[in-house]
Amino acid sequence: MIGMAVIGCGRIGRMHARNLARHARVRLVSVFDVAEQLARETAVELGVKTAASVDEIWSDVKVEAVLIASPTDTHVPLIAAAVAAGKAVLCEKPIDLDLERARAGWAALSKKKPPVMLAFNRRFDPSFRALRERLHAGEIGRLEVAVITSRDPAPPSAAYIKASGGLFRDMTIHDFDMARYLAGDIEEVFAFGSSLVDPEIGRLGDIDTCTLTLKARSGAQIQINNSRRCSYGYDQRVEVFGSKGMLQAGNQRATVVESWNAERTAARDPLLNFFIERYREAYDAEVDAFVAAIEGRSAMSPDYADGIAALELADAALRSLKSAAAVKL
Amino acid sequence: MIGMAVIGCGRIGRMHARNLARHARVRLVSVFDVAEQLARETAVELGVKTAASVDEIWSDVKVEAVLIASPTDTHVPLIAAAVAAGKAVLCEKPIDLDLERARAGWAALSKKKPPVMLAFNRRFDPSFRALRERLHAGEIGRLEVAVITSRDPAPPSAAYIKASGGLFRDMTIHDFDMARYLAGDIEEVFAFGSSLVDPEIGRLGDIDTCTLTLKARSGAQIQINNSRRCSYGYDQRVEVFGSKGMLQAGNQRATVVESWNAERTAARDPLLNFFIERYREAYDAEVDAFVAAIEGRSAMSPDYADGIAALELADAALRSLKSAAAVKL
Amino acid sequence: MIGMAVIGCGRIGRMHARNLARHARVRLVSVFDVAEQLARETAVELGVKTAASVDEIWSDVKVEAVLIASPTDTHVPLIAAAVAAGKAVLCEKPIDLDLERARAGWAALSKKKPPVMLAFNRRFDPSFRALRERLHAGEIGRLEVAVITSRDPAPPSAAYIKASGGLFRDMTIHDFDMARYLAGDIEEVFAFGSSLVDPEIGRLGDIDTCTLTLKARSGAQIQINNSRRCSYGYDQRVEVFGSKGMLQAGNQRATVVESWNAERTAARDPLLNFFIERYREAYDAEVDAFVAAIEGRSAMSPDYADGIAALELADAALRSLKSAAAVKL
Amino acid sequence: MIGMAVIGCGRIGRMHARNLARHARVRLVSVFDVAEQLARETAVELGVKTAASVDEIWSDVKVEAVLIASPTDTHVPLIAAAVAAGKAVLCEKPIDLDLERARAGWAALSKKKPPVMLAFNRRFDPSFRALRERLHAGEIGRLEVAVITSRDPAPPSAAYIKASGGLFRDMTIHDFDMARYLAGDIEEVFAFGSSLVDPEIGRLGDIDTCTLTLKARSGAQIQINNSRRCSYGYDQRVEVFGSKGMLQAGNQRATVVESWNAERTAARDPLLNFFIERYREAYDAEVDAFVAAIEGRSAMSPDYADGIAALELADAALRSLKSAAAVKL
Repeated sequence: MIGMAVIGCGRIGRMHARNLARHARVRLVSVFDVAEQLARETAVELGVKTAASVDEIWSDVKVEAVLIASPTDTHVPLIAAAVAAGKAVLCEKPIDLDLERARAGWAALSKKKPPVMLAFNRRFDPSFRALRERLHAGEIGRLEVAVITSRDPAPPSAAYIKASGGLFRDMTIHDFDMARYLAGDIEEVFAFGSSLVDPEIGRLGDIDTCTLTLKARSGAQIQINNSRRCSYGYDQRVEVFGSKGMLQAGNQRATVVESWNAERTAARDPLLNFFIERYREAYDAEVDAFVAAIEGRSAMSPDYADGIAALELADAALRSLKSAAAVKL
Repeated sequence: MIGMAVIGCGRIGRMHARNLARHARVRLVSVFDVAEQLARETAVELGVKTAASVDEIWSDVKVEAVLIASPTDTHVPLIAAAVAAGKAVLCEKPIDLDLERARAGWAALSKKKPPVMLAFNRRFDPSFRALRERLHAGEIGRLEVAVITSRDPAPPSAAYIKASGGLFRDMTIHDFDMARYLAGDIEEVFAFGSSLVDPEIGRLGDIDTCTLTLKARSGAQIQINNSRRCSYGYDQRVEVFGSKGMLQAGNQRATVVESWNAERTAARDPLLNFFIERYREAYDAEVDAFVAAIEGRSAMSPDYADGIAALELADAALRSLKSAAAVKL
Repeated sequence: MIGMAVIGCGRIGRMHARNLARHARVRLVSVFDVAEQLARETAVELGVKTAASVDEIWSDVKVEAVLIASPTDTHVPLIAAAVAAGKAVLCEKPIDLDLERARAGWAALSKKKPPVMLAFNRRFDPSFRALRERLHAGEIGRLEVAVITSRDPAPPSAAYIKASGGLFRDMTIHDFDMARYLAGDIEEVFAFGSSLVDPEIGRLGDIDTCTLTLKARSGAQIQINNSRRCSYGYDQRVEVFGSKGMLQAGNQRATVVESWNAERTAARDPLLNFFIERYREAYDAEVDAFVAAIEGRSAMSPDYADGIAALELADAALRSLKSAAAVKL
Repeated sequence: MIGMAVIGCGRIGRMHARNLARHARVRLVSVFDVAEQLARETAVELGVKTAASVDEIWSDVKVEAVLIASPTDTHVPLIAAAVAAGKAVLCEKPIDLDLERARAGWAALSKKKPPVMLAFNRRFDPSFRALRERLHAGEIGRLEVAVITSRDPAPPSAAYIKASGGLFRDMTIHDFDMARYLAGDIEEVFAFGSSLVDPEIGRLGDIDTCTLTLKARSGAQIQINNSRRCSYGYDQRVEVFGSKGMLQAGNQRATVVESWNAERTAARDPLLNFFIERYREAYDAEVDAFVAAIEGRSAMSPDYADGIAALELADAALRSLKSAAAVKL
């Protein structure tokens, strides 16, 4: 059992706290949020302590590891502080909105090989993971083309958009990581994007719909498409095409019920909506992997460098969007 | 090219005439119906002759074979006359509503091994045929259980019901033949049935919904379910379960389009509706097989004896329905 | 939080103990098995007490409810003792192999309306439950035909078969309960059955393959098919057909990955295998329902009477198998 | 009945000749090929005349329309000659490999509004057509993103590659037309491409794998991916995503059989392979549309201008591939 604290008790922080509280290999010790009320509610719900400050967490010997789910601009300093305090870190994506800050943070730490893992949850989805394992085991030969579809059910608030760093750093970041997870290092990025869903998003200088093409060092070509709105739910799919076949991992529903009537046949449920439901198993597996890495049974993966690599792709995509040309990394 | 005539120009007879008219290996010579007007319309549409009588057909040297789609009670005498005239016969199901008449008809003919084929169209459906070939090739080992689903889109008229010989002889007859096609000889039959769809059918002494179990000589158990009404179209499915696996052959639609929206995902088209659309390929393959048998390249199959065997099962099912006990054949 | 003890630490008892140990609304207090070693292993694994006897459980005030997973012939007396001790009971199926014993047990208790629930796990499967709710909400009109497929991955040991009470009481019992869950009271049963899978099962006087038809008081007809062996995994399906449409609930897999290659397309994983994996969510929901009933928020359902009703159907099926005739209840 | 001649009796010309010979609304009069032997074989097979020269066709009053399936560089002059002779024209894609020649050809003709239709067969596929009709009827709201997958079973010969005009003009041309069919005019194109399948194709200066993004004037973004090799058959899919939902049109197989065994479940047949099988219904519908346009019941569509537009996209894609930047049209 690994003693853990959660820093940040917003929507995703609270979800993580709940997962940790019922996880077989973790003992949730305390939670913290600068908004004290959020921390208190979470602590009461889960029967754990509220830390009065992050320093209290750093000095708590019962806390061996922290999960950082605070605002993005706090990730880099919190990771540094946690590592200094000897804690292992599982940090939410993105590592930072500013690539230079992210790189500087890692430059200061990387020599010590600190136990830091990035929470790219999709790598732990049983279907995406199985797809990758079968791909890497050679089932479909060499990877030639991948198609990644990622559509959110509904656009976030204007406030969220403003603080998000833009579509590529906030949402596509997952797909950049998925591209690397499947195809390895990426050499070149091209992006089309526009605001088709919500004119307000355009007014804020962001886009809500994009189509990207990536070229991997291996030669594989990866297509990504994103939308901030998807009427039928949270659309999350991966298709990999190789010299000997194809593997697809599709969407998931709450039941396997099909309905047949005079209008239509074999109709399925709406999709699991949203990430908390869709990636429930992935969040558990992510913690399993983190615990295994703390216990030395495997490496921290994805790590801080993977977080930087995804952010580099986001920045390259932004440059491509502005220049209407492919950008080399 | 085989010269053919069609006897009976009702709904199914006209469908056959149209199929024959465009079939690559057949030349449709003439059509006949006691309702002259029906014959004339069909002949005009297809640019062929109207025969004034069946005798005109028997004596027409251009007619090598006939397709009999006249009322059921004319099948046995017409087969006899056609065989006497030296014509090959493709006869619609059922062979007769009266088992003794059917047997007597065959007793008078069978020694000559006349070229008579029964039009059990489902044997020629590419999917059911492929399923059976894979089953018989051993892909799933020994057949243990089969489930046959057969549901018509809507109940026929009261007039049709009255003349139909009842659900088992009119509709289930196809499933009895399918059971024999898949599992060979049947030894025992049990039937439940009732009128759930249309009380008028019950008043006419017939049933519109039934569930049957058959036991084959091989030991295989076959479940059949039928309904005279199916809101989502013409439901035609076969599932065979064996010691090493399962094969299923499901329904068919006009397109492969799927629709996804806020209410439901992956919804398919309604089913092809009704037998003319659903078994279009089967009707062509049936004529191919008939022509091949006429040309001596294969046996007539299914033959008159198969028609009798299916009728025996229908009669046994009727006895089972009345006695609430299994009936041995 | 409900304090619970588990009686019986065999395969299924241990599964229940593990589920209860991690269930949010239950505190597992102790476990018991006449084979002390089994109890001790379970207790150590889960960090709970080993009860030295059932009496220790009856007198433990921290135990408000018990889960009975001991051999079938102990169910009736253990339920009586638990009720006498004021404990709520969640008892594994079947209630007993002897209908008279089961009825006598209930006769002695039923007036007190004791809090006894039967563990028919499939009623709590999210897909079967959703299918039933949609059926009962009228989505497909009146139920006319149901098809229940239930095939186990592999036959149990001869020792298990001998003690099982036979296929109908051991395995089909779930399908009898499912038939009642979907269609209400059953009036008539017909059964075919034989030993196609393993001759040894036949030598033991049991069958391993069966096809049944049930008629409900409502008029609905239900087909069940069972096999003790299914090469592709644990096949668990329900189809309900009504006047306005059809609902199906199919099988489940560990991932949503599809594979496409030169031999075949869109191939899915093997099925979840066996009940512990397939009904994982159902077992949790079953405990939820049990806790809700203890807390008075709902009735105990399914209850002891449902256990008797399923056993009555098993006995009727056995008489039908022997007589080759339908048996009325 | 429209009297027609076929010019060009290679693989695709002979397929067209066969289709026309059995088409209900067409009378195939004659065929021509500069390789006399090919024309003669086709004529004998179909029982039609061999034209000694194209002039014989132009002067044959029984020929009202021609289908041009000769080598690409003959398309423009043959169209001109056919139009001069008063014949309607159905011409295979691409219109020419040289955009300027294609434009010049049309400039000389377009004022007369001659009856010329381009044979973009996929527009007539029942599923793609139904998808487009549902899209344009507003079923999924405004089109935002489309994904077009098009993979050939196996690369063509080096000789074919050399004469093909390259992947974009030979294969992607269909997808450019599909993009226009779904999304209307295209404003911008970006292309990645490389030789991953066959190094020989790279040595010939061509590519065999590509991923493209198109931006339509409407704002819709379209992703295309192509491969010259697809181990599981001829992969032809379209997905359209809109503000209110998604429509997909997927692949097709010879049967609906599914196979379940210890290794995998619900496995389907390989795909229909290649265009002659996959687009069989489309070819018939294409001729229907051509005949309807000749008879004045509809416009010729797609027309010569659509052929030029697709070629413009192919040329733009080639420039994009070389410049690694998006190309505006």
